[in-house]
Order: sequence, then C-alpha cells, then structure tokens
Amino acid sequence: MTTASCFAAHASDSPLVPHQVTRRAPGANDVHIDIEFCGVCHTDIHYAHNDWGRTVYPIVPGHEIVGTVRALGSSVKDLHIGQRVAVGCFVDSCHHCSSCDNDMEQYCLSGFTPTYNGSSADEGGVTYGGYSKNIVVDRHFVLKVPENLDPAGAAPLLCAGITTYSPLKHWGVKAGMTVGVIGLGGLGHMGIKFARAMGARTVMITNSAHKAADAKRLGADDVLLFTDQAAVAKQAGQFDFLLNTIPSPHDVTSYMNLLKIDGTMCIVGSIGPTSELNSRPLIFGRRSIAGSLVGGIKETQEMLDFCGQHQIVSDIEIIKMQDINHAYERMQASDVKYRFVIDIGQSLS
Amino acid sequence: MTTASCFAAHASDSPLVPHQVTRRAPGANDVHIDIEFCGVCHTDIHYAHNDWGRTVYPIVPGHEIVGTVRALGSSVKDLHIGQRVAVGCFVDSCHHCSSCDNDMEQYCLSGFTPTYNGSSADEGGVTYGGYSKNIVVDRHFVLKVPENLDPAGAAPLLCAGITTYSPLKHWGVKAGMTVGVIGLGGLGHMGIKFARAMGARTVMITNSAHKAADAKRLGADDVLLFTDQAAVAKQAGQFDFLLNTIPSPHDVTSYMNLLKIDGTMCIVGSIGPTSELNSRPLIFGRRSIAGSLVGGIKETQEMLDFCGQHQIVSDIEIIKMQDINHAYERMQASDVKYRFVIDIGQSLS
Repeated sequence: MTTASCFAAHASDSPLVPHQVTRRAPGANDVHIDIEFCGVCHTDIHYAHNDWGRTVYPIVPGHEIVGTVRALGSSVKDLHIGQRVAVGCFVDSCHHCSSCDNDMEQYCLSGFTPTYNGSSADEGGVTYGGYSKNIVVDRHFVLKVPENLDPAGAAPLLCAGITTYSPLKHWGVKAGMTVGVIGLGGLGHMGIKFARAMGARTVMITNSAHKAADAKRLGADDVLLFTDQAAVAKQAGQFDFLLNTIPSPHDVTSYMNLLKIDGTMCIVGSIGPTSELNSRPLIFGRRSIAGSLVGGIKETQEMLDFCGQHQIVSDIEIIKMQDINHAYERMQASDVKYRFVIDIGQSLS
Repeated sequence: MTTASCFAAHASDSPLVPHQVTRRAPGANDVHIDIEFCGVCHTDIHYAHNDWGRTVYPIVPGHEIVGTVRALGSSVKDLHIGQRVAVGCFVDSCHHCSSCDNDMEQYCLSGFTPTYNGSSADEGGVTYGGYSKNIVVDRHFVLKVPENLDPAGAAPLLCAGITTYSPLKHWGVKAGMTVGVIGLGGLGHMGIKFARAMGARTVMITNSAHKAADAKRLGADDVLLFTDQAAVAKQAGQFDFLLNTIPSPHDVTSYMNLLKIDGTMCIVGSIGPTSELNSRPLIFGRRSIAGSLVGGIKETQEMLDFCGQHQIVSDIEIIKMQDINHAYERMQASDVKYRFVIDIGQSLS
C-alpha cells in the first residue's frame, strides 16, 4: 500500500480540499502511475455535488488521467517505467460477459467499475480518481499515450475524446458523409475535430451565433445556426449522422428532419429525461435516435493512436489543483474553452 | 374514363355513403383492377374524420386492396387478365430520387402519392382509394398476390403486413434472435406471425393479460405482461429487437431496458408526439429508437411471396360495404380480431 495526496469533497455542499487516500500495492497485473494531468469533466461536478444521489464521501473525482509509469506488476511486460500512459472512465469490469468479450467493457453486463466512486476491494471500499498524485490500475485498463501528443491536451481524450470518437466510428463516419455536431462544449469541440479528421463534411449546429468563428477554427466546414429557420429548412435531409452533445434537456426531435433517410442522431450529452419524443420524423424516414457511452479499452487505444496520427488533442486551460473549486464555478457558467486540465505534478506533492 | 361505385365521406362528421368516382382510362403502363376486397385501416378513420386536418372531401378511403386484372395498358406484359393483384398505400412516386432509385418509394424525397387523398392528375385532382368497385394504377405500384393465399385475408398484408414485415427484415430478424412485439392489434398480430416465421423467438408484450391466449394461438412463444414488474425485470437485456405497434402515445422509454446492448426498438404504431424520452437506457447500452413506414414496392412483393411460402394472411372479419360506419365504431372500441375487410364484390354493383 501507498498513500497519495489528492483533493476530495467531503459533503455535497463542501469545496474540494486536500486529502490523502490509500492506494493498493501493485499486484502482478497492476500499473502504478504517477499522475501528471487530470481533465475536469462535468461528471466530476455532478458527483462532487451528489446530484445523482449516489456519491460516497469523501469523493476524489477525475477520470481523464495522464501520467507516467512508476512501477509495474511482475506480469506486465509491455510497458516500461517512465512510459506515458492514461486511464479513463473505468478501471475494472467482469471480463467474461458478452460485452467484455467483445471489447465493450463500457457496457459490461455486471457494470464496469468507475475510476471514482466505484465499489472496490481496495482499502476504503471505493475507487478514488485522478485528482490525485498517483493511482494503481489493472494493466487491461491502462492506455498508451502516443509520444507526440501534448500530455495535458491528451488528458480529456480519455472521456470527452472517446465519448465522441466512439459513436462517429460506430456509425461509420467517413469521407463523403455530412456530419452535424450539435452543441459546442467539451464534447462538441472534440466531435468537430474527429469528424473532420475522419474525412466527413462537418457542420457545427448551434443556437449561439458567437460560436461560429471558433467552430470554424476547430475545423468545422460550416456552421448551421439552429435559430435560423430558413437555413434549417434548407439543410433538411442533408445529414448522414448527428452527434448531439447538448448537456441538458432539449427538444431532440427538432433536429431529426436534418437527417437523410436511415440517418441516426446519437445522444452523448444529456443523460436522463431529455425531451418530448415525436415519432413522426423517425417513421417518415426510418431515422433513429441512439445513445452511446464512452468506448471500450481497445477502441480507446485506437482513438489515442488516431489522435497521434492526426495530431489531435483537446483545447484546454491548465489549472492548479488549488483552483478546482473556481474551475467548477466557471464550468457551470460555460466559461471554459474547452476543458480544464489540472496540472497535478505542479500542484500536489 | 370509367366510373366506379364507391363509398365516401363528405364531411368530417358524416357517415360514409354511396358515391361515384371517375377513374382514368388506363394508359400504356396502367392496370385496371376490379376490386374484390379492401382492408380497413385506422388511417382510414383518421382521414374520414379529418383528424390530421388535411382531408379533401369527398374522400374514398382504402389502401389494402386485392382484386383481379380487368384490363392492361399496352406496355404491361407481365400480368394477365383475371390475375389476382393488389395495391397498397401509394400509387405513385417521383421515380428518380435516391429513395426511389433504391426501391424505397415510401421515403420518396418528393413524397409518394397516397392511394387516397393524394394529389392526382386524374379528374377530381385527388386519388380515391379502395372502398370502390375498381381502380386504375400504374403497373409499378401493382403487386402480384400468390394464388394460394385467401384474397380477403391477403388484403391487410398491403398495409398492416408490410408495416411489420419491413422493419423485421431491415433489422435482420432471424433464427437465434429474441423479438418482442409490443401491442396486439392489427399490426401486432401480423408482427407475431412474421417474427415467428422468420425463425425468431417471439414474445408478445402487452398490458392486457386476457390477450395472452390469442397471442400464443397466433404464434408467440411467450407472453410478457408488462404490468408484472418482476417478470419485466427478469427479461431485461434479453431482446434483440422490439417492434412497437401501440397506436397511441405511451412511455416508449420504459421498454428500452428489455433490449440487449445495441438493440433497437422500432415504432410503427404511434405517429406524432408519443412519449417523454429518457436517454439513459439509450446511452447505457448504445440502444436505438427508430421508426419505419410501410415498405417499398419490391419489398412488398417479397413480403407477399414470403406469405405465400409460409401461408400467412391476416386474421379478419369480413363485412359488407354498407357496414363500414359500424365497423369504424367497433375499431375505435378495439373490437376487431384483427382487421375488418370489406367484401367489395358482394357489396357494390
């Protein structure tokens, strides 16, 4: 066992403060990682505030983790000390269900073990995330980070990145297609980068005219202002795929007529009661509304390698651990382009 | 030109009464059909009552048409006089859009011409449906009815049949799969027959315990009473595909957890505002909610041939044309197993 400096929330209305957690001694299949950077995801805020009623305090958030290998278990032969590695949204799964057998640990039928606030056999009985100096993780759930990627910018790839990459790949986005990315935040800005890199004509769809310039800087071929009814009508039936990253309830049906026959809109932002569903555009066009959750480990490695090939990282603002509570306030005001990343190495000793 | 005895509604609150319409003289590509039987679809009632605000009176409903060839245009070489043929929900489309090019006339980008209440170059400027002694239809939209099928029972195949067959085929239903058919009415009873004939384990899902026996008679392997929470919980994650035939608004999300990872529920019954959408079961399982509209002409012929091979027709109650207003009342009370079919030949002279 080893201890790790970290930041934790201790109750739903408390700020995150310095804390110590115990990490297990690395077993034969484990990797002990010195954390360099950890991205800050909206989910972190929901858990810190117990918005979903299932937070176990004290909670150490953080599931966009990049660091270097400090130590390796005896069975881990394909990593080396000092290698840059990453950990995403989960650190274990059952390993033997149909989902795990098919490299879709995110849909493990027994439920994956989330990187924080998950049940654990470790001391404390709960997993502690990446707002922490170090972490011990089963090799299967450790990713290799391409050497050419900025490690801070790479951290958000582990959640915001794979959340957008996976559905674009699953629904076969490629050159010749037109893809709409709805909403420009942490997820949306990655969606634009990926859809463009996959060769699709990429259209940013937003209600905020002031986001147009940034969308184009990020790679969007075009911007559709969804409040412009004439422009929307003109684009009806033009899209092969829509990636809906809006993080809060909204009228999902209103976007469906943008899709071609047999097109799909995939929701990755708003989880839970989201909208009134009108079946008409589904029926009159065999269109689908789907959802998608991060990605499996194999696919996450593929995504990181894709990012290495295409020089893709997240647009970030680096903060120190001590700034986390202010960062949460700014995120709730949508004041970040497009992801905060904590410089753990410069913050915790 | 020729005239045809028919029944028509003349205003939204009027009963259907005897009427005469003019049919165009058959052109080179046309088929003149003596109608024997016409199924009665819920859509007929909606149009007769102008529920959707777009009825052109007088209206002659009916789009589940079976009859025999009276005359053929000079270019029609693959049918013969007296041959049993059928007409479904549409009688024309643009013939040159991507949907028409891919045998999906039901999704014609210019909009198909419905069999009744559609714009027409014929006298009257509107199409008149199958509650009529005869009809003239472009060969492309005329189907061949297998000789071994009861012509009255075959009539509902042209709408209720293809509406359920098409999504089952599109989503690849086959042996080894488990399919849930939600709702047991005109559509649902056909869904059971088709899913079973395609080799899937077929489960009738209903809120009405008294429907169980009939569901099994129709071919369901099992019945899931959706009001039985324990039974529903036990079936979570067991279904490859759900065919949702419920004709009115209802909570569609509540069925989604029955699906396996990557499973789809297709809505074919309720058109319009249908439900609150909760994205959670979509995201945590990459599940989809889709819609589907009847089927293309090529697929409709395939469906009729499949019915010939498997001896599938609709369960029907035959009525005379004069009984139509009473039949509408009974349908609105869900009092029909499972489709009324008008015996046109015995009703109109």
